[in-house]
Amino acid sequence: MTDYRLPITDYRVVCLAGGVGGAKLAAGLAEIVPPANLTIIVNTGDDFQHLGLTVCPDLDTVMYTLAGVANPETGWGRAGESWRTMEAVARLGGPDWFRLGDLDLATHLTRTQLQGEGQTLTAVTRHLCSHLHIQPAILPMSDQPAPTMIASADGRILPFQTWFVRERWQPPVRQIILPEDVKATHTVVRALETADIVIIAPSNPFVSIDPILNVYPIRALLEDVPQVVTAVSPIIGGQAVKGPAAKMMQEMGMEVSATAVAAYYGDLVDLFIYDRQDAGAFVGRGDAVALDTMMLDGDGRLRVATDVLQATLEYLNA
Amino acid sequence: MTDYRLPITDYRVVCLAGGVGGAKLAAGLAEIVPPANLTIIVNTGDDFQHLGLTVCPDLDTVMYTLAGVANPETGWGRAGESWRTMEAVARLGGPDWFRLGDLDLATHLTRTQLQGEGQTLTAVTRHLCSHLHIQPAILPMSDQPAPTMIASADGRILPFQTWFVRERWQPPVRQIILPEDVKATHTVVRALETADIVIIAPSNPFVSIDPILNVYPIRALLEDVPQVVTAVSPIIGGQAVKGPAAKMMQEMGMEVSATAVAAYYGDLVDLFIYDRQDAGAFVGRGDAVALDTMMLDGDGRLRVATDVLQATLEYLNA
Repeated sequence: MTDYRLPITDYRVVCLAGGVGGAKLAAGLAEIVPPANLTIIVNTGDDFQHLGLTVCPDLDTVMYTLAGVANPETGWGRAGESWRTMEAVARLGGPDWFRLGDLDLATHLTRTQLQGEGQTLTAVTRHLCSHLHIQPAILPMSDQPAPTMIASADGRILPFQTWFVRERWQPPVRQIILPEDVKATHTVVRALETADIVIIAPSNPFVSIDPILNVYPIRALLEDVPQVVTAVSPIIGGQAVKGPAAKMMQEMGMEVSATAVAAYYGDLVDLFIYDRQDAGAFVGRGDAVALDTMMLDGDGRLRVATDVLQATLEYLNA
Repeated sequence: MTDYRLPITDYRVVCLAGGVGGAKLAAGLAEIVPPANLTIIVNTGDDFQHLGLTVCPDLDTVMYTLAGVANPETGWGRAGESWRTMEAVARLGGPDWFRLGDLDLATHLTRTQLQGEGQTLTAVTRHLCSHLHIQPAILPMSDQPAPTMIASADGRILPFQTWFVRERWQPPVRQIILPEDVKATHTVVRALETADIVIIAPSNPFVSIDPILNVYPIRALLEDVPQVVTAVSPIIGGQAVKGPAAKMMQEMGMEVSATAVAAYYGDLVDLFIYDRQDAGAFVGRGDAVALDTMMLDGDGRLRVATDVLQATLEYLNA
């Protein structure tokens, strides 16, 4: 077996992450970057209030994955989950379209309790991470609500989870509406101001990464500060590994390809990483590297994180 | 076996109830009074916000008992309950001093969701009762928050559940503080305006019944409208059947006896029912009847409800 572990470096790494794909890459990075040098900034654009609780799907997926308690089959939710409460909610005529397991509910209950006591989402996330024995910093992109809305082709404007879960991302997307005037926390700004490397995870560019870049002044900091911004394509072999990225690209009139993702990120990204499957078709202006980017298990996460970091260091030292 | 069932009457019965004792008598009444003629008005003074949810302990105890899903051992909470979520909350460093079971949580989640959609507590309670197949009307005393506070002898002012559950009702009670300007709902007012009989359940007079009477204009309606107000003593054999009633009476300088309860209710009550165990010691001004009032099981609830209603009808026809 190849030893993919890099020598421990002093590079400060920030990873921008959405849900499942972002969580996997972040978990791989957590195995090779010293915890004090790794910060994961997570999309909160798909957070919502449900059953009285603050639910943060991407934050939770990243936390559960890094804590090793995620459901390995779904990629979200908790391993060994049960559904007693949600089944009882359904019997009481409550909404059960967004399935919250008994273990998962504990996260939302604790979060909502601590927020009710006046703690910020950043502080609550730190509290939860500490109890889940997670060492790298996991930061919500903002402490303000920053709801992503989906304008569908049939003229409706839907909150993200309504579109994504309740309507199973079927209504065609006309436009993604991101909120104005959302500000990053001091903690996020400090992490980016001192970052050497920023890695944009293979998350959905439109509803996972754009909501983060939309938070002031994250995009500007990415343009100015780090020595290198690396992005990993969420499109492999012309398809999304999971979720609606490919469908959205089609509906918004884009080609569904790693090339189109690279063009979409444009000058913001210094180094673009796409999958070897797309090597024949890929056409890009800037620096780009083809790697095997599928993360099917823990070994895959470690391999991809290591290769992405290695390629980034080679770019830096070139 | 004696047939305690009365002939169905056209008397409209309203029962004022707190938690366990009130729920038992209400469940007995529900077996003999036609549902359209029975209304249970429930204390909401010990409701509180916890883990982001609206928790209504007395309403839930009454609902669960009437639905036949209450935990028969504790008298509160649900039968066949499990604790997966609460155990996970504890592991996440959340508060676990108020134990909410997996099934019970579904009630609070559904309630909080529906309130968030703009429904009143009255409407939400109707929704929950309908899904629990409960026929008599169960009404919160008010749709406004009406928190009961406990002034303890050591100078603190505690929210009711903090005193009752978190501190296990140990801090001596100096005074019970009820909120001003709480108004009854139209539904409660209408029920009392058309009531023939009001039965005050054997609940704690100070923290279950007084909070109801404190809601405007419930006390005045009780004085004016019904043909008879019957109260059942929660003190049996000089002791509280359950909970802090006896301890509170002592700490507030009262004698612990059915006599003292009758004196406390005073002219508001037309007919006072105390237990046969107290027959030797009972001294009261007005009409009073000694019955066997212990409700140890379903048969006991039916027997006490029937005897109380029978005694009330005899008082009316005397």
